[in-house]
Amino acid sequence: MSKNNNKQVIGLFGFGVVGEGLHHVLQNSHTTHAEIKKICIKDPEKQRSLPAEHFTLDPSEILDDPEVNLVVELINDAEDAFGIVSQALSRGKSVVSGNKKMIAHHLPELIALQETHGAALLYDASACGSIPVIRNLEEYYDNDLLLSLTGILNGSSNFVLSRVFSEHKGYHQSVKEAQELGFAEADPSLDMGGWDSLYKLVILALHGFGALVNPEEVFVSGISNLQAGDIRFAREKGYRLKLVAQATKINGKSFNLMVMPKMVTEDEYIYNVENEYNGVIIEGAFYEKQFMFGKGAGGHPTGSSVLSDITARMHGYRYEYKKRKYFNIPQHTNEVVVKVYLRFKNLLDFSHFEFESIEEKLSSKEYNYVIGHIKLSNLLPLRKLIQTLDVFLAFLEKPSV
Amino acid sequence: MSKNNNKQVIGLFGFGVVGEGLHHVLQNSHTTHAEIKKICIKDPEKQRSLPAEHFTLDPSEILDDPEVNLVVELINDAEDAFGIVSQALSRGKSVVSGNKKMIAHHLPELIALQETHGAALLYDASACGSIPVIRNLEEYYDNDLLLSLTGILNGSSNFVLSRVFSEHKGYHQSVKEAQELGFAEADPSLDMGGWDSLYKLVILALHGFGALVNPEEVFVSGISNLQAGDIRFAREKGYRLKLVAQATKINGKSFNLMVMPKMVTEDEYIYNVENEYNGVIIEGAFYEKQFMFGKGAGGHPTGSSVLSDITARMHGYRYEYKKRKYFNIPQHTNEVVVKVYLRFKNLLDFSHFEFESIEEKLSSKEYNYVIGHIKLSNLLPLRKLIQTLDVFLAFLEKPSV
Repeated sequence: MSKNNNKQVIGLFGFGVVGEGLHHVLQNSHTTHAEIKKICIKDPEKQRSLPAEHFTLDPSEILDDPEVNLVVELINDAEDAFGIVSQALSRGKSVVSGNKKMIAHHLPELIALQETHGAALLYDASACGSIPVIRNLEEYYDNDLLLSLTGILNGSSNFVLSRVFSEHKGYHQSVKEAQELGFAEADPSLDMGGWDSLYKLVILALHGFGALVNPEEVFVSGISNLQAGDIRFAREKGYRLKLVAQATKINGKSFNLMVMPKMVTEDEYIYNVENEYNGVIIEGAFYEKQFMFGKGAGGHPTGSSVLSDITARMHGYRYEYKKRKYFNIPQHTNEVVVKVYLRFKNLLDFSHFEFESIEEKLSSKEYNYVIGHIKLSNLLPLRKLIQTLDVFLAFLEKPSV
Repeated sequence: MSKNNNKQVIGLFGFGVVGEGLHHVLQNSHTTHAEIKKICIKDPEKQRSLPAEHFTLDPSEILDDPEVNLVVELINDAEDAFGIVSQALSRGKSVVSGNKKMIAHHLPELIALQETHGAALLYDASACGSIPVIRNLEEYYDNDLLLSLTGILNGSSNFVLSRVFSEHKGYHQSVKEAQELGFAEADPSLDMGGWDSLYKLVILALHGFGALVNPEEVFVSGISNLQAGDIRFAREKGYRLKLVAQATKINGKSFNLMVMPKMVTEDEYIYNVENEYNGVIIEGAFYEKQFMFGKGAGGHPTGSSVLSDITARMHGYRYEYKKRKYFNIPQHTNEVVVKVYLRFKNLLDFSHFEFESIEEKLSSKEYNYVIGHIKLSNLLPLRKLIQTLDVFLAFLEKPSV
C-alpha cells in the first residue's frame, strides 16, 4: 500500500442526514488529516447547522478547486450524483459516495472512469451503513470460496417489519413511524419495494463474485403488499418475515441474485436482526458461515462509514476489483427454482404465476395461499406487475437448480 | 496498494489440524498464485496424508531456499515459532502465522523485524479463526472512535460452556468431549484458563488502539474452577456464562484489557454465541455496536483465514500499524473498578480479595458468594493464585473508573 498520507481536502455534496452526520463524526474523530473545505447544497432556503460561508450552490466551486482532492457525494438524486462523480473522477479527484442507486446502475462506467483517470471511487457506505461488507468481500474473502450472501440490507423496511411483527402494529402506521424517526424516506417505495436492497445486492455481487449484473435482470419484490394474513401465517409457523437480499452460487459456474421477503426460521442468524439494523451472512466453502451485524441506517453510522472511506483514501486505498482479474467470473442466471409462499386474493391474480410444483394450497373466503416451487425466470417479467396485484410473495429456501 | 502479484511459493512449518486444513483449502480454492513447495515437520514417524517427498525435517530447506517467498508458520511451540518467524523475516521472507502466544509475547520485536528487513508478517488467523477482526480493526475502524471490544475469542472454552450450560453436562466431561472433537488441546489449561483469549486480546489491542501491552500486565481468570453452584446462580438470574476478553477505553486517554468469565444477559449480542463459535462486538462512538460472528476453531475455518493472509500477500498487503502512527496512543491501566461475582468456599480464600464495595452476600454451608466492586489492580497480582483457590470469578459489567 502506497504511503500517500496527504491531507484529504474534501468537497462535500449534500448536507442531509448523512452529510451532517459525517461533519459531526469528522469533528469528533480527532483526525487532522481530513477537512471539509466546501459544502455544495441545492436548497439555499433550508435552515443549516453551520454558518453560510461553508456552503455553495455552485458545483464548480468544488470541482474546479485544485486544492480539493476528495469529493464526498451524499445527495439523493442518482443522476445528479452520477454527473458529479463522473466529473470529479475525470478531473482526477477521488470520490467517496454512498449513492447505491447511482452506483448499481453505473458500475461499468465507474470502473472505466477510475481506470482511465487513475482516481479512486470508494463506496463502502453504500451498503449496510456501518458494516464493512464491501471492503471485506474485496479484501478478505478474496478467493473463490464464496457460496452465498444473505442479507438484511435495508434498515427502513426491517424497522417496519419489526414493528409489524414483534409489536403487532399495522404496516402503514409502522411506515409512518419509520418516517418520523428518520429511518424512511418521504417516498417509502424504494425501501419497502426492495429496490434499495437490490442496488446494494448488485454492488455486493461485484465485490463478492467479480460479476457486473444489470439491476433490471434481478427479481425483486418487497413488503408493500404485506397483509394481516401473511403475518398470521408466519407467526403460526414460527417464522419471522425479513426482506432478504440473496446471492447464491449455483453449481460453481453461475450465480443468482434476488430480493424477496423471506420466512426466516429461528436457527438462521438473521432471525434476530431487528429494527434499523442490518445483518449479512457470508457463507464460504471452508469458513462456513460468518455473520456481520450493525446499524444500517441513520446519519451517524453511515457518516462513520463514510469516514472509514475517507481515511482509507488517506492511505491510498482503492478497490482493485480483484475477482474480476484473478478468477473465472460466474454468470448471473435466473434459471433457478425457488420455494415460495404466494398469498393471493383472486384466481386472476394467481394466474400470472406459473409454478413448477405445488406443495400446499389453502383456500378460504378471505385468504388463499400456495406454497410451491417457481422459476425465477418466470417471476422476473412480473417485477412491476406484482406491485399492482393483491398478492404477497415470500421465499422459504435459497434458490437451487 | 502495490500490484505485487507474484506467485506465492510457500514453505509451510507444521502439518497439524490447521496445516492440513490449509493444504486442503488451497487445493480447492482455484488459486494458481500460491503453492506449497515444502512442509517442515517435527515428527517423522507420524502418519501423513501426503507422500513423503512433500516433507522435510530440516528448517533450512525452507529458510535457505531463495524460491520460497512466503513462510507459513503453523506449529504449536511458541519459542520454536518465534525462531522460525524471526529467521524468515531477517532473510526478507514474508510470514503468515497463527501463533497467538508467540505473537502476543513478541510484538515489539516482530514490528521491528518487519521495519528493518522490509518483509511483512500477517496473522489474521491468530485471533478468531475465520472472522477478519484484526484486518477490520487495522483497515476499517482506522480512526479514533473505538470505545470497546468484547469478544468470545476461544472456541474450545466456549464449546465447554455451551455443553455445561445448555446441555447440563459436567465440566470435566465437557472438556473431554471438546478434546475428542478436536476443539481442545490435550492440555486444556491454555484455553480454559483464559490464556489463549488473553494473547488474542493483546493482539487485538494493538490493532484497535495502537498500543503494545505486555500480557503479564493483563488480569486473566478462566473457567477451570467452575462449579455447579455458579451455573445454578447464573441460570436462576437469567445469565449465560461466557469467557470474555474485554478491552475498554477509559476516559479517552487510557484503556483496560482483561479476560474473565462474564454473566451475560439476553440482550447482549454474545449471549447466543454457542459451541466452537467466536463473536466480537466492536463498539464505537458513532457506529455504535457492530457484531462479527463465525467459526473460531477447527482446521478448515482457520485454514481459510490463513489463505486470506496468503492472498493478501499476493497483493502486497501488510499491516501498517496505522494507529501507532497517527493517533495519541492510549495507555493501558488497571486502575479501574469492575463489578464481579466471587464464589468461594472458605473465608481464607476470600481474604485475598479486597473489595471496594459489596452489594450482595450469600452464605451457606456449601456455597458462598459476594457481588461487589473490585479494583483490577488488586486482582492482577492474584492471577496465578486464583487457579489454586476454590473460588470462581465472573464479571457483570464492563470496567469503569
